[in-house]
Amino acid sequence: MSEHDPTIFDAILAGDIPCHRVYEDDHVLAFLDINPLSRGHVLVIPKERARFMHELSEESAAALGRVLPKLCKAVMAATGCEHYNLLQNNGAPAHQAVFHVHVHIIPKFEDDSGLCIEWDSGSLEDSEHLTQAIREAIT
Amino acid sequence: MSEHDPTIFDAILAGDIPCHRVYEDDHVLAFLDINPLSRGHVLVIPKERARFMHELSEESAAALGRVLPKLCKAVMAATGCEHYNLLQNNGAPAHQAVFHVHVHIIPKFEDDSGLCIEWDSGSLEDSEHLTQAIREAIT
Repeated sequence: MSEHDPTIFDAILAGDIPCHRVYEDDHVLAFLDINPLSRGHVLVIPKERARFMHELSEESAAALGRVLPKLCKAVMAATGCEHYNLLQNNGAPAHQAVFHVHVHIIPKFEDDSGLCIEWDSGSLEDSEHLTQAIREAIT
Repeated sequence: MSEHDPTIFDAILAGDIPCHRVYEDDHVLAFLDINPLSRGHVLVIPKERARFMHELSEESAAALGRVLPKLCKAVMAATGCEHYNLLQNNGAPAHQAVFHVHVHIIPKFEDDSGLCIEWDSGSLEDSEHLTQAIREAIT
């Protein structure tokens, strides 16, 4: 699917496709991921139609952030998980499959189900120039 | 380091340790990760002291969400990256190393530098019960 086409989340938001809804307010919908990485894997989406985080309005991004503590708490209570990852992918090379902003809440269990990451970090180079470039690019 | 001790981010917020600061407002600080997964890897932290997302106030979580679109846009502009991941880890088994909430903005480049994920998804089981359990746990 092209990143410009309507997505399955538009159909879910319109009520044309059902979902396992766990939460909804004026700005946000949350439901179970039908292909979970672990038990209790939830997707949190803004109702605003935006493909990527950098395209989302600040209002929707704030609303998305605001609900995360209580949704994480509820996923923990319902599944018994003690650890979890929040992940939001932007672009196919970054594992985005549906081109509508979505935050994954992914419980991490002792059987290692959940998000598996390779953490291959390096050293910071050219830090002064990079800091300055990002600061100047903030609008 | 225990997850109950003060963290290096407390020292950064207090100004006792320098950071490569790219953004700051009343609720949020953003700076370069000194062990980046890719060029332009930025950490966004709430000024509120909380170890995990489920412990953060809704106000701080909203403030954290609100700044993400403009910070992502700036990282893209400064680094030329077209794709990126946002990641927020909770608990050592979920790759959390500093026990103060932080959102990673991790550019993904064509050389594959950035976040490397294994996406080993399964099928949704026991969905009705799980949906109900999460809904009922939201307070």
